[in-house]
Amino acid sequence: MGKKVQSAISPTRAEDYPDWYQQVVKASDLAERSSVRGCMVIKPWGYSLWENIVNTMDDMFKETGVSNAYFPLFIPKSFLEKEAEHVEGFAKECAVVTHHRLEKGEDGGLVPAGELAEPLVVRPTSETIIGDSFSRWVKSYRDLPLLINQWANVVRWEMRTRIFLRTSEFLWQEGHTVHATEEEAIERTRMMLDVYARCAEEYLAMPVIKGRKSAMERFPGAVDTTCIEAMMQDRKALQAGTSHFLGQNFARASEIKFQTMDEQEAYAWTTSWGTSTRLVGGVIMTHGDDDGIILPPRVASAHAVLLPITRKPEDRPTVMAFVNKLAARLREQTYHRRRIVIEVDDRDIGGARGWDWIKKGIPLRVEIGPRDIAENAVFVGRRDKGHREKASMPVEGFVEGFTDLLDDIQANLYERALNFQETNTHEIAERDDFDAFFTPGNKEKPEIHGGFAVSPWCGGAACETAIKEDLKVTIRCIPFGSEVTDDKCICCGKPKSRKVIFAKAY
Amino acid sequence: MGKKVQSAISPTRAEDYPDWYQQVVKASDLAERSSVRGCMVIKPWGYSLWENIVNTMDDMFKETGVSNAYFPLFIPKSFLEKEAEHVEGFAKECAVVTHHRLEKGEDGGLVPAGELAEPLVVRPTSETIIGDSFSRWVKSYRDLPLLINQWANVVRWEMRTRIFLRTSEFLWQEGHTVHATEEEAIERTRMMLDVYARCAEEYLAMPVIKGRKSAMERFPGAVDTTCIEAMMQDRKALQAGTSHFLGQNFARASEIKFQTMDEQEAYAWTTSWGTSTRLVGGVIMTHGDDDGIILPPRVASAHAVLLPITRKPEDRPTVMAFVNKLAARLREQTYHRRRIVIEVDDRDIGGARGWDWIKKGIPLRVEIGPRDIAENAVFVGRRDKGHREKASMPVEGFVEGFTDLLDDIQANLYERALNFQETNTHEIAERDDFDAFFTPGNKEKPEIHGGFAVSPWCGGAACETAIKEDLKVTIRCIPFGSEVTDDKCICCGKPKSRKVIFAKAY
Repeated sequence: MGKKVQSAISPTRAEDYPDWYQQVVKASDLAERSSVRGCMVIKPWGYSLWENIVNTMDDMFKETGVSNAYFPLFIPKSFLEKEAEHVEGFAKECAVVTHHRLEKGEDGGLVPAGELAEPLVVRPTSETIIGDSFSRWVKSYRDLPLLINQWANVVRWEMRTRIFLRTSEFLWQEGHTVHATEEEAIERTRMMLDVYARCAEEYLAMPVIKGRKSAMERFPGAVDTTCIEAMMQDRKALQAGTSHFLGQNFARASEIKFQTMDEQEAYAWTTSWGTSTRLVGGVIMTHGDDDGIILPPRVASAHAVLLPITRKPEDRPTVMAFVNKLAARLREQTYHRRRIVIEVDDRDIGGARGWDWIKKGIPLRVEIGPRDIAENAVFVGRRDKGHREKASMPVEGFVEGFTDLLDDIQANLYERALNFQETNTHEIAERDDFDAFFTPGNKEKPEIHGGFAVSPWCGGAACETAIKEDLKVTIRCIPFGSEVTDDKCICCGKPKSRKVIFAKAY
Repeated sequence: MGKKVQSAISPTRAEDYPDWYQQVVKASDLAERSSVRGCMVIKPWGYSLWENIVNTMDDMFKETGVSNAYFPLFIPKSFLEKEAEHVEGFAKECAVVTHHRLEKGEDGGLVPAGELAEPLVVRPTSETIIGDSFSRWVKSYRDLPLLINQWANVVRWEMRTRIFLRTSEFLWQEGHTVHATEEEAIERTRMMLDVYARCAEEYLAMPVIKGRKSAMERFPGAVDTTCIEAMMQDRKALQAGTSHFLGQNFARASEIKFQTMDEQEAYAWTTSWGTSTRLVGGVIMTHGDDDGIILPPRVASAHAVLLPITRKPEDRPTVMAFVNKLAARLREQTYHRRRIVIEVDDRDIGGARGWDWIKKGIPLRVEIGPRDIAENAVFVGRRDKGHREKASMPVEGFVEGFTDLLDDIQANLYERALNFQETNTHEIAERDDFDAFFTPGNKEKPEIHGGFAVSPWCGGAACETAIKEDLKVTIRCIPFGSEVTDDKCICCGKPKSRKVIFAKAY
């Protein structure tokens, strides 16, 4: 009573959410800042989480008929300039290659030499360079649809960076498709958004809201941008994936034309869609607790760690034999198309050992000592429960029910996140209530505010801008199915509005 | 008799090998040149071949305890300068980022703006930027060995490029390991070379010779470079993978130090090793014939194509039902950890259909018409045999023996390549014979020369340079186990030499 509960991460979420995030990234050994401005190093534990997300999505893409390919890292400046809104959106923050050599300068140090005739931009996204290839690949309606995806690194020279969430270089996938008709392109835009939602909800255990962006928040050059938005534990929104209907804008810019069935020449209709390593930041902030990250089992870098307890040296051979046999039995199983991954940690470092794995977010910690072996049992801690909550389980039941246990954790994480999102989402009709909802209760913790407001908006950019400037709150999306009613706009009070999601966002 | 045998690729290998290569790349739909100088676009058929190579190697790396991670694309100029030989080797051809913005210039066009305080180099290889992380990760002998791999794109501003073989940007993996002892680092260098040889021989069906490079051909900054060298069908060598023992050179440059068991501070020992999309070029040139590429089954983008023959429209339902059922049965099987991939091509484009798949190098073409169905048979063409050589097979035998058939093709490709390599490798002791061996018989086909010469070399750089200047022939490797004897050096005639592999090379 009154005693402070120990936790592994300091500060806690309640004390300082932004700093908690940085400390979790560090304590969990997911990634680190590099010596290059705004670029991160993804460490093995973080990278294997990303690999599992990649493999999950890649399978889903391929099931919809998409093929992978690879396009150049560099985009000639003139290509970027082909689409007016597009270049406007990306020119402000891009890495520009101007030389192709380093040479001894006057002071003996190396200086850039061999100036390029045309500067090259390191791709911030690849619509224009991929469009160049597509203009060659697409000749007839028989070549359509063309369904391509690329796994790649991209660079956007962000001024303020935050690891995983906003870095100068990040890893992502970008899908690019070409269609003969507007309807088919719109259908594909939505199909890929649904894939993203399924990956987020079923694999990352991260509930999302699907909808479209306002004109102001659209991808530069798109006709329509759809997105999935998730709620983090500071109640801010994270845009977790976007899928764009590009109309004929990029087809015109890159001359992607085809001969129709009735032998007319027509511009094609294109889409693009992307998700990135930002999803790792989303996993941290959706599920993490004051002990660190909690990995959803379906994408976890490893599923369980076995921790042999050998206080007396003479116990060691028996315990290790038992542990290795158990590891082998578990590794024979598969879970969501992947072999079960089991870590065995027999380091002799006392209590730090268990804490290491808690901080790393491994779904299950399994302690095995001579007493457990005598009872043919294991002592199991679930990462989704408190760190003190551990229970003895018979070995056979544990092995046979292993994937069910993982599914139970997965479901629990999703339920908890959904409950949090629902609890912190409110329909708000009055501007006073809206302002209060987004005004932090405590100036020292500006991140603690209401959450998602579902409020009517007239559709006007002026209202959207006013709210953004007043409260730093943006329209995250216009949820699919949100219809125009006589509700009054939360900003200007005019009727004929739609309910949209307002929130502070990453 | 006397009639010219038709082939799909023009020119043939004998007519013009370099142009044959370019035509195969195009006809097989593997890749294309992009609009960016020296950069290629890897098309889906080529990319899936690369994906299969990646997955094969990635599994092999992980089995040796290696983990994947990801490091920044950009390297500060000052990092590259830390190792003198290293920067010397790479400064001459690197993409330099000097600005982080594009702005409207005086003539209204966009110009680079926001000059960086220190130029960044797009990684040509990552020893120095990874070393920076390693210097933080390694503190004690307990942190060693550190075994890391990265799958990434790199850029080397090559003056003369050739698709897959030498491009400004290419995809590769680079392994980087840190060890407490010299012996362990040397052992790891060799272990990874053995992994490369196994991948080349068992998966790409590409026989290789393992050995070490001469000092002149060493990786800039390495103590010892080991390599695998393969023979292409123009008898030139392709360096297909390298594994470097870096001694303490990069540990000193990046300050990778650790506390030893007896509490001393010591510099660590490091290795690095890499293979790239160049392997795809190796597959083309090892196995390709005058009809196009031949894909080794174990890494083939797809294993077989089913070609329904429906001359009469009323046959179509029966044939397609049969074909789809057969495809489903084959797809249930696995081959080298991968699901069998079956294409069904029911395009109505006449003979062009079969030729498309021949050019794409798919291991098996399976024709199925009403007559085959009546006999419960399929008509099978193997890509490793001539394009006219097809045979009827009972369906049951075909399905049950499918993976054996693939293994037979795989083995045949390897045998053929090994036989070619052995036939064109000669022990040559006299300089006159050596010169004749490397002098093309026909000035119009400079690529047709002898092959690999196994000849004694005194170890002197002067001899190596003289031969390189005279004949454009280099020492590909000093094969492991090649011992110093009293043979006379092929160049200077002095005894105390070792037999090494001389060849023209890509």
